Amino acid sequence: MRNTPLSDLEVAELLADAARAAILPHFRQAGLETESKLEAGFDPVTVADRAAEEVMRDLLSTHRPADGIWGEEFGQSAGKSGRTWVLDPIDGTRGFISGTPTWGVLIALTEGAGPVLGVIDQPYIGERFVGMAGMAHATGPAGKMPLRTRPTRSLDQAILFTTFPEVGTAEEGAAFRAVSDRVKLTRYGMDCYAYALLAAGQVDLVIEAGLNAYDIQAPIAVIEAAGGVVTDWRGGPAHHGGRVLAAANADIQASALEILRRF
Amino acid sequence: MRNTPLSDLEVAELLADAARAAILPHFRQAGLETESKLEAGFDPVTVADRAAEEVMRDLLSTHRPADGIWGEEFGQSAGKSGRTWVLDPIDGTRGFISGTPTWGVLIALTEGAGPVLGVIDQPYIGERFVGMAGMAHATGPAGKMPLRTRPTRSLDQAILFTTFPEVGTAEEGAAFRAVSDRVKLTRYGMDCYAYALLAAGQVDLVIEAGLNAYDIQAPIAVIEAAGGVVTDWRGGPAHHGGRVLAAANADIQASALEILRRF
Repeated sequence: MRNTPLSDLEVAELLADAARAAILPHFRQAGLETESKLEAGFDPVTVADRAAEEVMRDLLSTHRPADGIWGEEFGQSAGKSGRTWVLDPIDGTRGFISGTPTWGVLIALTEGAGPVLGVIDQPYIGERFVGMAGMAHATGPAGKMPLRTRPTRSLDQAILFTTFPEVGTAEEGAAFRAVSDRVKLTRYGMDCYAYALLAAGQVDLVIEAGLNAYDIQAPIAVIEAAGGVVTDWRGGPAHHGGRVLAAANADIQASALEILRRF
Repeated sequence: MRNTPLSDLEVAELLADAARAAILPHFRQAGLETESKLEAGFDPVTVADRAAEEVMRDLLSTHRPADGIWGEEFGQSAGKSGRTWVLDPIDGTRGFISGTPTWGVLIALTEGAGPVLGVIDQPYIGERFVGMAGMAHATGPAGKMPLRTRPTRSLDQAILFTTFPEVGTAEEGAAFRAVSDRVKLTRYGMDCYAYALLAAGQVDLVIEAGLNAYDIQAPIAVIEAAGGVVTDWRGGPAHHGGRVLAAANADIQASALEILRRF
């Protein structure tokens, strides 16, 4: 047993490993218990979701006792270090209960101005996308490879993703469709996996609305480390959630922003 | 080297293995060549698509020289046996060029009245769904498991999938939405993987329009072997393509058909 403390990246990977082990036994199991957190909507919470956050919190209490925690399931726990681990144990619960391998475990480390380290993990595929200052890579079925966004310059060559075709409110949906009408291809249903594909240079834009901070902080860190840009629909910071525009590069971001700003 | 000839299932798995090897080196590669088959639409064909069909045709000429072949890329080759191998080397090319692991290799063996054996293979995940008379199973990251559709009885408990929200023509889209308005959850963007999820008991309905025969024959065989039902929107045979309704069981199929028939 070594005596040096784990690095932040090592802690993040430890959390992701533990979340995988907690969640996978529940994925695609018949009779999976779901309950509705919001009476009015459809926001299932699974046993897996809670088990994964609990195990990640336990690990943080051991390895980073001074850091705060903000988890989707169990809320905020104050720390003393000024650093916060932001956890979404299963982002994409509707994808999860449908059996699609598009949900993910999101882990971010945030200091003051925003996330400085992010992990998007897809346990079923066994694929992990990691980003922090000076480093962005993925590991998975194809081995380990660097993450780099692509240089698409114009909307008519761009691939755009969002999870739900309606994209939030009626006005938000109209703004989304104004961009969608200009791109080469629009696809749906990928949950947080869409952000991973953007970091991996496969798609150019992800536009969503109504996000929580824990939905977007890990994607921000991964995408920025891979060369992309993530802002709100006005070009401001996105790490508080809400309306999010993720783009492969500043050119394509500017083209999408020009349209979104009209709404 | 054994002297007994390969079974149909062994031949199908041999094709799927070869297609995997032909396609995977091209998946998520920057600069992937695509061309438009249809001037008016967006129907990319990749180098991988053609390479995979060629290698499957070569194997069939060795192991099943008397059988016909109908491939998405190279068309129909007559046989003498009355049996035809129906091949779609990459179903979901738009998913493929976006990097999503939702496209698949579709392989069906058809005799007269419809498909008798089907394979849906997702090379990147390493997942394969197989169905024929008396046998339906999947192999993948979670090992080998039987495929069985689920017993959902009412639309308000059902999960519905389709790939594109517009679902074909305006009238077809309206029919789809009439069903979608009644279900618990509608999701998009899964390409042929949606049919695999139905066979695996994860979702209840897949509704699509404008399909080709080679898009649906393998899913029909896999879903029927797993206990599901696949018809057109009038309850008739679906193996010629067109408008397709795939359902987990006869009850949920009847409820969806009742709505679709009004259009």
